[in-house]
Amino acid sequence: MIRCSKCQYINPTKCSPIKQICFVHSKCNRKKPKSKIISVPEVNKFIVECLRKLNVKDDKACILAKSLVKADYQGILSHGLNRLEHYIIDIKNKNCNPNADPKIISESASAAAVCGNNGLGAVIGVFCINIAIEKACKTGIAMVVAIGSNHFGVNSFYTEHAVSQGCIGMAFTNTSPLMVPTGAKKACFGTNPMSIAAPAGRCDRVVIDFATTSVSLGKIEMYRRRNQKIPIGWALDKHGKPTTDPAVAVKARRLSPLGGTASHKGTGLAIMVEILSGLLANSTYGPNVRVWGQKPFKPANLGHGFIVINPRRFISGFEKRLGDLLEHVRKLEPADPKRPMLVPGDMERARMKKVDEQGGIEYTNSHLKMIQRLVQDLGVKPPKFKS
Amino acid sequence: MIRCSKCQYINPTKCSPIKQICFVHSKCNRKKPKSKIISVPEVNKFIVECLRKLNVKDDKACILAKSLVKADYQGILSHGLNRLEHYIIDIKNKNCNPNADPKIISESASAAAVCGNNGLGAVIGVFCINIAIEKACKTGIAMVVAIGSNHFGVNSFYTEHAVSQGCIGMAFTNTSPLMVPTGAKKACFGTNPMSIAAPAGRCDRVVIDFATTSVSLGKIEMYRRRNQKIPIGWALDKHGKPTTDPAVAVKARRLSPLGGTASHKGTGLAIMVEILSGLLANSTYGPNVRVWGQKPFKPANLGHGFIVINPRRFISGFEKRLGDLLEHVRKLEPADPKRPMLVPGDMERARMKKVDEQGGIEYTNSHLKMIQRLVQDLGVKPPKFKS
Repeated sequence: MIRCSKCQYINPTKCSPIKQICFVHSKCNRKKPKSKIISVPEVNKFIVECLRKLNVKDDKACILAKSLVKADYQGILSHGLNRLEHYIIDIKNKNCNPNADPKIISESASAAAVCGNNGLGAVIGVFCINIAIEKACKTGIAMVVAIGSNHFGVNSFYTEHAVSQGCIGMAFTNTSPLMVPTGAKKACFGTNPMSIAAPAGRCDRVVIDFATTSVSLGKIEMYRRRNQKIPIGWALDKHGKPTTDPAVAVKARRLSPLGGTASHKGTGLAIMVEILSGLLANSTYGPNVRVWGQKPFKPANLGHGFIVINPRRFISGFEKRLGDLLEHVRKLEPADPKRPMLVPGDMERARMKKVDEQGGIEYTNSHLKMIQRLVQDLGVKPPKFKS
Repeated sequence: MIRCSKCQYINPTKCSPIKQICFVHSKCNRKKPKSKIISVPEVNKFIVECLRKLNVKDDKACILAKSLVKADYQGILSHGLNRLEHYIIDIKNKNCNPNADPKIISESASAAAVCGNNGLGAVIGVFCINIAIEKACKTGIAMVVAIGSNHFGVNSFYTEHAVSQGCIGMAFTNTSPLMVPTGAKKACFGTNPMSIAAPAGRCDRVVIDFATTSVSLGKIEMYRRRNQKIPIGWALDKHGKPTTDPAVAVKARRLSPLGGTASHKGTGLAIMVEILSGLLANSTYGPNVRVWGQKPFKPANLGHGFIVINPRRFISGFEKRLGDLLEHVRKLEPADPKRPMLVPGDMERARMKKVDEQGGIEYTNSHLKMIQRLVQDLGVKPPKFKS
């Protein structure tokens, strides 16, 4: 459990076990980048307007916008507006058919397979999770898999939707090869993220959502920009050897599985995600998935899997029990008194509260430049800034 | 990805990133402990005979024996015959009713909740997984949870059974508090193991099975016996601070979640396992679970969860696709040419092959002493030794 020496935040940026310091604190000494606040409805409107210019139908554009804005609202800026240009490139290059409707291709009482017809990942994901919720409400548990899909954003977008219906949601997706299985030299799996979220009564919930690599490539890129070493156990060099040089790691694109000294468990989790998404769905899988944005452009044909459990079909009182457990964890004595305990999802809720308080999402200079590019390229109106 | 410098085996016993050395190689220089080989049927017979002396009915005794012997057969000696004395103590102290029959207490098309009536965990587990398989074959996916259970052995015992029926099996169980969630000082969750296994055609399969802590307490005990330091990220001391002293760690009983620098993901996995076992089942959960073998003795009331997916209800060809992916992983160039790539479950199959070749399971001196104690205490015949 390596934590920031200043605030006990996990994932410190320096790998020294003595003088480790986290992302937040390492930023304290840095010049704050230029940023502007945009209200949530304004960001949403801007994304929809961009997509309209590409002839994306409103129902589809609204779903994609909602998924991207929610990520930003929760502070997951790597998966929000930041990704809009990638989606637009896919649409422009006809790698994705944004107006395609997903279709059920096989179905039973608690299972369905959906063909996404190379549509927008978020549209396909919402279609699938809704079927899974409907079936689980009848039978207790249901699973829906999707073939022919594209990047679907943040997994918790779907699992939280299941929670809003009183269910436990699980979401899995394969992604482009980046993870080197334990003992190998080359990447064979994606970061293969997974999420589970569950309702805990009285508006409480737990939302677990993570990649099955130790860290994302984006995080290593941040280290490179700051010229800081990365810890052993995050990535390999082009020869498949562990590296502490973020520049080498970014170039090699070979991430290590979650687990540190027990990375075989992270490898196992990546295989599990592949089973529950690409392999069951018959999409591309493992090393066959294309790298996003790399030539030659071709459809992603990603696979997703969604499992929904209806706790009311088991023993009553599930939400109360989970709420009790979450409260117990929050009340545990923290290792650092200044860092009260949180459960997964609390941090995102705190960020949403902050967005509400400040009247919008704070976007940095790189976002603002991207907005400017889109305004020029697509001829859309820029969003109104709050500051 | 820290590996043994001699053989590239994961989980090296020395924490130095330079001169790390694995369990197997650190043993090379040690005097080999006295050991004897006992054939699989002989171990099975011995366990059944011991249980008969405690008036355990044959059907129940055979299931427990099968689960323990299978663990030993696969080289998971910590969860096999080694555990028999614990089960016997529970039976003698009436903490467990070994002849209790599990009963379904609620049921729908794809879900069931089972009360184990404080019976043997393995008996309850087999009862549940069979119901889940039967339901999944009809509906595509099914989940069965159990309340009022006891330690059920190795999770993969159940998931491999699902595989034998052509299904994907998942098994989850809560356990006694040992894991300290990221940022806390005291244990709140068990090692909360999980397993997923899936058929890959032509007798191939993948069997993923691991605790959601970085390591087990048993592994740290091994380090203590060898007077070797443990890496940071495995355990905490009694004040909730990371420790490298295995003696301090064993005494404190505070394991760190899986993940190393990303241990919040391991915490999330432990919560996921708790949701899918104790919380859905309404058994004891989290910090409320009793410590096994500690006074005052009381029923464990553990919770388990089993999910079975019938891949034939999705898109045909699942086994072929998984088989293809597993073969791809096995053929990846290894970081060390002397250590060919394996997929989860391969090592256990190699150990089973070795047992078959040598005509039985190799038990060490501590096992042999335990057998002697049971022979004297229960008046059973000792098993026949092969060597």
